[in-house]
Amino acid sequence: MSSRLLTHIKQLVNVRTGDQPLYGKEMAELPCLNDAWLLLEGDEIAGFGRMDSIKRDLPSLPRAQTDCSGRLVLPAWCDSHTHLVYAGSRENEFVDKIRGLSYAEINARGGGILNTVQKIKEISEDELFRISWKRLEELARMGTGAIEIKSGYGLSLEGELKMLRVIRQLKEKSPLQIRSTFLGAHTYPPVYRDHHEGYIREIVEEMLPIIAKEKLADYIDVFCENGFFNPEESETILKAGLQYGLQAKMHVNQLNAIGGIETGIRLNALSMDHLETLTTGEISRLKNSGWKGFCTLLPTAAFFLRMPYPPARQLLESGLAITLASDYNPGSSPSGNMNTVFSLSCIQMRLLPEEALNAATLNGAFAMGLGHTMGSLAVGKTANCLISAPVPSLAYLPYRFGSNLIDKVIIRGQFVA
Amino acid sequence: MSSRLLTHIKQLVNVRTGDQPLYGKEMAELPCLNDAWLLLEGDEIAGFGRMDSIKRDLPSLPRAQTDCSGRLVLPAWCDSHTHLVYAGSRENEFVDKIRGLSYAEINARGGGILNTVQKIKEISEDELFRISWKRLEELARMGTGAIEIKSGYGLSLEGELKMLRVIRQLKEKSPLQIRSTFLGAHTYPPVYRDHHEGYIREIVEEMLPIIAKEKLADYIDVFCENGFFNPEESETILKAGLQYGLQAKMHVNQLNAIGGIETGIRLNALSMDHLETLTTGEISRLKNSGWKGFCTLLPTAAFFLRMPYPPARQLLESGLAITLASDYNPGSSPSGNMNTVFSLSCIQMRLLPEEALNAATLNGAFAMGLGHTMGSLAVGKTANCLISAPVPSLAYLPYRFGSNLIDKVIIRGQFVA
Repeated sequence: MSSRLLTHIKQLVNVRTGDQPLYGKEMAELPCLNDAWLLLEGDEIAGFGRMDSIKRDLPSLPRAQTDCSGRLVLPAWCDSHTHLVYAGSRENEFVDKIRGLSYAEINARGGGILNTVQKIKEISEDELFRISWKRLEELARMGTGAIEIKSGYGLSLEGELKMLRVIRQLKEKSPLQIRSTFLGAHTYPPVYRDHHEGYIREIVEEMLPIIAKEKLADYIDVFCENGFFNPEESETILKAGLQYGLQAKMHVNQLNAIGGIETGIRLNALSMDHLETLTTGEISRLKNSGWKGFCTLLPTAAFFLRMPYPPARQLLESGLAITLASDYNPGSSPSGNMNTVFSLSCIQMRLLPEEALNAATLNGAFAMGLGHTMGSLAVGKTANCLISAPVPSLAYLPYRFGSNLIDKVIIRGQFVA
Repeated sequence: MSSRLLTHIKQLVNVRTGDQPLYGKEMAELPCLNDAWLLLEGDEIAGFGRMDSIKRDLPSLPRAQTDCSGRLVLPAWCDSHTHLVYAGSRENEFVDKIRGLSYAEINARGGGILNTVQKIKEISEDELFRISWKRLEELARMGTGAIEIKSGYGLSLEGELKMLRVIRQLKEKSPLQIRSTFLGAHTYPPVYRDHHEGYIREIVEEMLPIIAKEKLADYIDVFCENGFFNPEESETILKAGLQYGLQAKMHVNQLNAIGGIETGIRLNALSMDHLETLTTGEISRLKNSGWKGFCTLLPTAAFFLRMPYPPARQLLESGLAITLASDYNPGSSPSGNMNTVFSLSCIQMRLLPEEALNAATLNGAFAMGLGHTMGSLAVGKTANCLISAPVPSLAYLPYRFGSNLIDKVIIRGQFVA
């Protein structure tokens, strides 16, 4: 088993057992250790301590050492909401929006989700794996160590299975920890546009049994929104998923507040994601309901769509747990760069660097059911960590939003090339 | 004289003699050449053409060739507004603002411009050169080929000369084309807070004569803003500069519309910069005045300060010329990444990729008096160009805001390491 020692680390960031997610004010607490060492053995963190006691703590030092003078060492990012498996890109639609075309006009030109659905239909499973793998490699270089990936561009039994099988291949072959979410209820396929119950029946009676049988998904998700799935339809689908052991996640309150929050509370959703249009009343409901899930915020999507950001500070002040994720997808967030998410959260949503870091590491891990092995630097947790460039402090990372300040990435104890 | 040939270029972008800046609708026009070659000889562009006629056009091919299959080749960025020469960083102030501290409270804690002024006072000229050089190197790697740098953190004869001499050293030693702007009127030093005419006299009678004699500046600039320099004070200073042959630039309408636009029109400013609070009436005035200068927009500053963006589309619709620049400085835009500026302009200010590209290259060059040698791909212009990663189109660059898609940078015919 190979060992690697990181020495003279300016600051070890988020050093804690991290066996519980963080709520409200706790999110501003970020345990750190200055002038430290970190020992990795195999794919696990084996120890850490202060440099001044390294000779006492580690009488025999491993040969493989990395000097981290002036540098921070952070846990790798845990990105709990992405649509990374897709085909094609939609920069033409991006330009159409700049030109002022409406959502309806873009859809009429074959844009929107259905554009990607068509491309998923045309692409082979092998090719879809290949391009998804390349994206995953780029994200690993940028510091993502764990990631959730959704289906939802299939919208048919065949298409959804194709996506979920690609996600399974990624799980099997990538050193990143991957979680899979079934999002058959992303939108209605055209044939079911005026016949919602027909598609919901297809999801519940045809897709779910096979997906469950083949163990292709860890979670189930639904896009609860005007013109997509209303709260009742969402509840039907999520309940069906729960019967197969798939815990619920939700896209909710992105464009409109239509009551989906109540559904999420009732079904004890693991996370409710987006929340751009969350009302003060809904925040109170979340707070008073005793719900212990995650408010997953996707600031790059709000940024890219020129929308208001979700009310991050109010959520924290209400004692709720927030998570930051990239929403990586070709339509509304064509980036999976979690460093950008981190920076954008501080600059635009006024999160403290400590809060944003916790949201994008430890809480992100818990929002994927991975909190016990990922998201903080603790003995026994997976050896996923980032080595920064020499910087004065953690706050310098989001402050310098235009620079890549992650110099090296370690996933399962191995440097990412 | 060394020659280098770029071959099989998917698209050569902004191919034109570019001997005139672009106004209004012209900014959406971007001449390109598909499947092309580009020949660099020494530090100049020596020729270009289509691959299918390369054997006829170039009977003897140079040995040094670079295959650019699938890639775009663009002119390097021309960044016409920066404060790159500074000491220290201000991420603590960034965090203070997140915590909700007011501008006044931050100033009371020693933050703001005066924080950097103090650090300039303490640092040696050699050390200031060294850290500025490192920043310039990072920007070159990111694709900046020409840059304007302002003084303004000295606020004393000694301090301003220190900064301007550092800029002169950068000019002499860097392959980047650099223009120098005297911004003694950045704010009032504390001793002159209630005695404005004293500082203005110091600028006009002490600083300007020496700066002019030593040829330390190409332009003069002033921060025209409530609590800083009012329009009358600005006019006095800019006129004094004009007498020494320094054309005027202005920081104007960043926080308030206080009449500085009229001053800029009257003095025929080369550029008026910021413009976040420009009114519809002022846009009409600019349009009807016959002023032919540049509206320099600094979207990363608006982004970082959580302010509204300047009215880019209205300016274009009024037939005005816009320029995009980074405003690189430690307080309000701690990034000089012009790729971020390009992307942000399309996403947040709804500029078409073609408009933003022209604004950040050709018009940027003209806003530094460099339009005849920089800012487009033309025979005889300086060999400053960017080679992108393989991408489907120009629009893909701003669309993929989280990825660095500039693979290689050539400055004066040489690859940047």
